[in-house]
Amino acid sequence: MKGAILSINPSAQIIDITHDIPPQDIHAGAFNLLASYAAFPPGTIHVAVVDPGVGSQRKPLLIECAGQLFVGPDNGIFSWICEREGKIRAILLKNEKFFRHPVSATFHGRDIFAPVAAALSNGVPLEEFGDSVSDHVRLESLAVKARGDGQAEARIIHIDRFGNCVTNLTRDHLSEEWFTTGAKLFVDGREISAFRRFFAEPVEGQDDLFCIFGSAGFLEIAAQDSSAAAILDARRGQPVLLALDRGN
Amino acid sequence: MKGAILSINPSAQIIDITHDIPPQDIHAGAFNLLASYAAFPPGTIHVAVVDPGVGSQRKPLLIECAGQLFVGPDNGIFSWICEREGKIRAILLKNEKFFRHPVSATFHGRDIFAPVAAALSNGVPLEEFGDSVSDHVRLESLAVKARGDGQAEARIIHIDRFGNCVTNLTRDHLSEEWFTTGAKLFVDGREISAFRRFFAEPVEGQDDLFCIFGSAGFLEIAAQDSSAAAILDARRGQPVLLALDRGN
Amino acid sequence: MKGAILSINPSAQIIDITHDIPPQDIHAGAFNLLASYAAFPPGTIHVAVVDPGVGSQRKPLLIECAGQLFVGPDNGIFSWICEREGKIRAILLKNEKFFRHPVSATFHGRDIFAPVAAALSNGVPLEEFGDSVSDHVRLESLAVKARGDGQAEARIIHIDRFGNCVTNLTRDHLSEEWFTTGAKLFVDGREISAFRRFFAEPVEGQDDLFCIFGSAGFLEIAAQDSSAAAILDARRGQPVLLALDRGN
Repeated sequence: MKGAILSINPSAQIIDITHDIPPQDIHAGAFNLLASYAAFPPGTIHVAVVDPGVGSQRKPLLIECAGQLFVGPDNGIFSWICEREGKIRAILLKNEKFFRHPVSATFHGRDIFAPVAAALSNGVPLEEFGDSVSDHVRLESLAVKARGDGQAEARIIHIDRFGNCVTNLTRDHLSEEWFTTGAKLFVDGREISAFRRFFAEPVEGQDDLFCIFGSAGFLEIAAQDSSAAAILDARRGQPVLLALDRGN
Repeated sequence: MKGAILSINPSAQIIDITHDIPPQDIHAGAFNLLASYAAFPPGTIHVAVVDPGVGSQRKPLLIECAGQLFVGPDNGIFSWICEREGKIRAILLKNEKFFRHPVSATFHGRDIFAPVAAALSNGVPLEEFGDSVSDHVRLESLAVKARGDGQAEARIIHIDRFGNCVTNLTRDHLSEEWFTTGAKLFVDGREISAFRRFFAEPVEGQDDLFCIFGSAGFLEIAAQDSSAAAILDARRGQPVLLALDRGN
Repeated sequence: MKGAILSINPSAQIIDITHDIPPQDIHAGAFNLLASYAAFPPGTIHVAVVDPGVGSQRKPLLIECAGQLFVGPDNGIFSWICEREGKIRAILLKNEKFFRHPVSATFHGRDIFAPVAAALSNGVPLEEFGDSVSDHVRLESLAVKARGDGQAEARIIHIDRFGNCVTNLTRDHLSEEWFTTGAKLFVDGREISAFRRFFAEPVEGQDDLFCIFGSAGFLEIAAQDSSAAAILDARRGQPVLLALDRGN
């Protein structure tokens, strides 16, 4: 893919974000993009190629959003960014003039996404790549569900390599002070009520699990020098109940 | 190595192809180079350092081929590219003026290959690095052996991280339509007759193994959501028999 | 972090040294920096983020040393370089003008170190980042202890991914010829007296363990096609005794 880009724009500045997305794991790709895109400057072109559906009816997509561009498969990998940003423009990549030929059925990263990204970096207007579309594939929403009893139903959206379990709870749902007044998480019946501001924070008691706001802005369940995911036998998608027993 | 390059050419554009070659695995390095070099623009300088023979009588090599340059150990790592391209020029790296001193006996990547690549990127003519040689170390040929019975003997040349078994069969040996008229592979007696154009292609029947043309242009043996190598207990070098029972 | 850098200096040239430091392993980070910094050109800005103490009282640090700059946590990760170079200048990063806001409590790499490195690459003078300090956190010294009996006490400072055990012995302590006159290492009572100049060097006898000077300049204990660390059940910090039985 880097060769394909440099063959079209020799002065492109290519940055690797990660080499460690598990094979075919669209959700892990989506989370890593969501966690990093906002730190990049306006005009950045992101190329993502977690693409188990390559060669099938799965569409190739270009998204303009938050002043940046995103090129990759229409499989939801950019949808959490779109959900957060709200205002987006999506274009189906159709103009084969910008593809590398012959286009293989097994590696659109090299044959479609990288060449299109290179053309974009050369200043080709978005309109030339294809027609705008009103919808695109979306992963499950990151929204947290409010419940009648004052509790909220969240879930684990990502498990990182340290075993930290990232939830879809943010500071919009609760602030760290709430833990001092009784806020708790429940995962599969297990209660987590400890909170740390940073990983090395000294804590009273001996809870092995604690909550922490991670660098992507989400509340994470972590464990001291250990894997929270292993302790909880957690899986992505698992429900996390937030009980706001404030002042009770 | 990157420091050695930038110390000589501060504006060199350095691209990582892969960090995942298993230690000392010359064949894996050779395959990854073969699969990627053609996508790079003319004048690209490839540096390869899978080099178990570093410090021994193993020669340091510079190859010009396909409009690109290749710098590394003379251990066969570039030989599949040379075999495919045919016309090449090989030079033994002898001029120590272009080396980093003192030259260690354990890391020629940093002390010889990277500095030579940097000098090349600065425009130093090939002649200055050493004398042309007529031969170089070659890995086993990628040629497929025709057999008297109309069958062909191929082999597994690479097993990738998904467990796909890459053979040395290409579209020069068979086209995908041939599978619909009875072409089959045999690996250790096991027959593989299913073919897919892409990984997610819906298929009839329930063969767990299938053939697919991979992005490097070779026919691969793959498995649905699983490792073909594990199912076949396959190893690199293992014979693959192609039986062209066309129309029988 | 790369996004944070490019947002401040769009033309920064970003080089990855390694993605393979084990989580929170400050010593492994320190060793990799020590092994690579000298190959980089003057003015290089190194950013290191093995940072288990992020968010705590651990200070953010800028070090000028050997004509290069080092930005990261004050946890000892640069201290082996400082120990080798001797003359250094250390500055505590205090001027929040150069930070990314809000500064998280869990990722100073993105919010402090990368932005400061980017500002440095833009030419901001060192004085603007904070006040000089006379001391900084240091890992255990790399010095080898001489003993009264003519022997020397070294230790294993790093175990690499091949299982080679890197000691803190250098050519300042012994030359390779000494092994021919009886120099030996002892690790946990086990004697290692074989020496190779390079990994593929043919050797007499059948010692499975041998000594070799690695590319970072340290004497390493290695094993033929095997992990010396596994054979020795070695751990970092383990004592290594050098017995110089020369001519006895």
